Amino acid sequence: MTAGRRESKTGRADASQSNLPVISLTTDFGSDDYFVGALKGIILADNPIARIVDITHNIPAQDIEAAAFSLFCCYSTFPKNTIHLVVVDPGVGSNRRPLVVRSGEYYFVGPDNGVFSYIIDHEQKRQAIHVTAAEFFRQPVSSTFHGRDVFAPVAAALSLGTKLSAFGTRIDDEVRLEPLALVPDHKGRFKARILHIDRFGNCITNITRKDVPLELESRVKLKIKGNAIKSFKAFYGEENQNRREPFAIWGSAGFLEISITNGSAARNLGVKRGDIVTLVPFSGSVE
Amino acid sequence: MTAGRRESKTGRADASQSNLPVISLTTDFGSDDYFVGALKGIILADNPIARIVDITHNIPAQDIEAAAFSLFCCYSTFPKNTIHLVVVDPGVGSNRRPLVVRSGEYYFVGPDNGVFSYIIDHEQKRQAIHVTAAEFFRQPVSSTFHGRDVFAPVAAALSLGTKLSAFGTRIDDEVRLEPLALVPDHKGRFKARILHIDRFGNCITNITRKDVPLELESRVKLKIKGNAIKSFKAFYGEENQNRREPFAIWGSAGFLEISITNGSAARNLGVKRGDIVTLVPFSGSVE
Amino acid sequence: MTAGRRESKTGRADASQSNLPVISLTTDFGSDDYFVGALKGIILADNPIARIVDITHNIPAQDIEAAAFSLFCCYSTFPKNTIHLVVVDPGVGSNRRPLVVRSGEYYFVGPDNGVFSYIIDHEQKRQAIHVTAAEFFRQPVSSTFHGRDVFAPVAAALSLGTKLSAFGTRIDDEVRLEPLALVPDHKGRFKARILHIDRFGNCITNITRKDVPLELESRVKLKIKGNAIKSFKAFYGEENQNRREPFAIWGSAGFLEISITNGSAARNLGVKRGDIVTLVPFSGSVE
Repeated sequence: MTAGRRESKTGRADASQSNLPVISLTTDFGSDDYFVGALKGIILADNPIARIVDITHNIPAQDIEAAAFSLFCCYSTFPKNTIHLVVVDPGVGSNRRPLVVRSGEYYFVGPDNGVFSYIIDHEQKRQAIHVTAAEFFRQPVSSTFHGRDVFAPVAAALSLGTKLSAFGTRIDDEVRLEPLALVPDHKGRFKARILHIDRFGNCITNITRKDVPLELESRVKLKIKGNAIKSFKAFYGEENQNRREPFAIWGSAGFLEISITNGSAARNLGVKRGDIVTLVPFSGSVE
Repeated sequence: MTAGRRESKTGRADASQSNLPVISLTTDFGSDDYFVGALKGIILADNPIARIVDITHNIPAQDIEAAAFSLFCCYSTFPKNTIHLVVVDPGVGSNRRPLVVRSGEYYFVGPDNGVFSYIIDHEQKRQAIHVTAAEFFRQPVSSTFHGRDVFAPVAAALSLGTKLSAFGTRIDDEVRLEPLALVPDHKGRFKARILHIDRFGNCITNITRKDVPLELESRVKLKIKGNAIKSFKAFYGEENQNRREPFAIWGSAGFLEISITNGSAARNLGVKRGDIVTLVPFSGSVE
Repeated sequence: MTAGRRESKTGRADASQSNLPVISLTTDFGSDDYFVGALKGIILADNPIARIVDITHNIPAQDIEAAAFSLFCCYSTFPKNTIHLVVVDPGVGSNRRPLVVRSGEYYFVGPDNGVFSYIIDHEQKRQAIHVTAAEFFRQPVSSTFHGRDVFAPVAAALSLGTKLSAFGTRIDDEVRLEPLALVPDHKGRFKARILHIDRFGNCITNITRKDVPLELESRVKLKIKGNAIKSFKAFYGEENQNRREPFAIWGSAGFLEISITNGSAARNLGVKRGDIVTLVPFSGSVE
């Protein structure tokens, strides 16, 4: 679903073999508070050679699906064995489980609320550990900031080479989100949805190339909020007879997007995240 | 006041011994301009192995108290000997003094306007140097950007092992802010204040566990803007009979917060930073 | 035009000699999406020891002039041989050329749309390569995200020591923006413009010390939107008889700014980027 991984001339780096461990951060902490600083301080205090990379700290507050989507779109660009740490955690302090997950060539650390489920669906295999070994935590553990007291120290311990089994016991009933994959109805139509609106106002759907093979592009249309979208473009700046007309374009993470030249499709069409998009064969009827 | 420091299995890193010097940044530069890039460029040009960590660049413009609070809440999570650089500097170009401070296990670099005073109050001991040795500065020193021309090069020089005494002369009359510690009135009530509103709308007070020991939690209440708050919760998502009712919770930096489940307490209660909070024994009267 | 480079006691770092390659990032990606994370992942996967430094990701969407200005103001603070990567790329997917440029002591990677032209004007010499060697790209190259698929891998390859000539062929007809340098009219007046409004509301013009030598400061004035500005100040907080009166001040990147004490000059004067500023000798007449 995501674009194929590149094997560069020098080969892809392996974060563990190179002794240059990488820890990525995806949170809903925003950029105004001290929260991100506290995470980084803890990680560096435990592992001074860790490379910390921000993915984003602007996940909407407590928005698990948005975090799951953002990480899914870029996790596989990182060096093998990168530790992807996610702290979007509305259940902080409750009995929701802290997790360490191994899936594909990466590690994942975060709360058991579904943030990793798009990746697990995609990679198909995973090893998930319910973290219970409190000796890895910052003591005393607060009930309000497990990012600092639980997840960051666990990620740091992983980056120091701690084995998965040391953190707790294996589980296979992690919380999972509604999958991204589409299921056609009996008329061959798909009910898709808007997963994300990006900075430029592009509306990203969960429709992938598997759902619309190249040879069928000219024979499908999208319906959203009363608009029918029929034309596909190869790049954003491509010539457009009607510059205000929305078009479909294959986005950089492998999903079909709805866009407008030099404008915000979301604003122009009144589209919000979660809105339904119907993908219909041209010959089919749309109610 | 801040949660106890953690001694991990591997021990806390020492930024100087490890030859991996860490410099944290706290500024009011925002994220839109080139200012932060200039600071980092200067630091790396002087010390290519320095690890630069952003705490936040979104301190409200010229808001010394906000900078002091943010740094106070996370400075002690960093490796020992981390250099905490703060550039919130309404007096840039005037005769306000540039400072290097040693306090606790950390170094601090910034203007003499009170940004370090919560830390100095907490650590109790400090060595403060008025930086006068112009050979450390970027020449010519502008009158508008001492972050780039004075503070960043001084932080880089510190990270290279320069002794405190090389930067200037010791002083003991630094600018200090109003302390965070509460003083009770003759009725045993405390007049506290809102120090900070975080991204989630939690209202952080300067009330600490010292002011409200655990055994007294059920016998105090908070008054703010006509609201009386009596219930304490252990974590944000804890079950709440009345989900719109504000509650008190011990926040991650050791201060009592006023919160609402899944909402912004600040917006719901109309609370702003600086607002007065009265902490009263239940038996006491509140006007 | 920019302030003189500083030779510190230890000398300026050379990013290539030190084996600590630095790659700076300037984009219009914002901080909400996964785009920045994808760039960093790709760079670290190709070159695990690269130091990645954010200049800003908040360039207004597709605003080439803003990106050119931001980078121009800070590029020379970085270690020699830093690779400055810019992805502000309205032409992504079209036939606009990807570039690698050597100018002054730095490398530059980005689209051929003028983003480097202020630097090239300033450094006077440059070697510009039209990047055509697809073996450096992430395959398959998307038509929507050349930052990830073209520019980041090229920057990583440069940081690994790849020679300029390996990337493609030399060109000398890169796209150039309108130069920053002023040209006087026949009355000795200059028509300048507002290049940038910073976070504090300061209005940065393209007027430099060359246009207003120190000895002439008392004999010029600025006209903007019906306001005449006659006073120069040495620093923002300098005493002001009329605190609401705008003044001129030499900013940190060498340009004359229009400012107001403790306020936003842009908001107070209704100034926007691109507005015309007329610089007139006092004896001259202003229409």
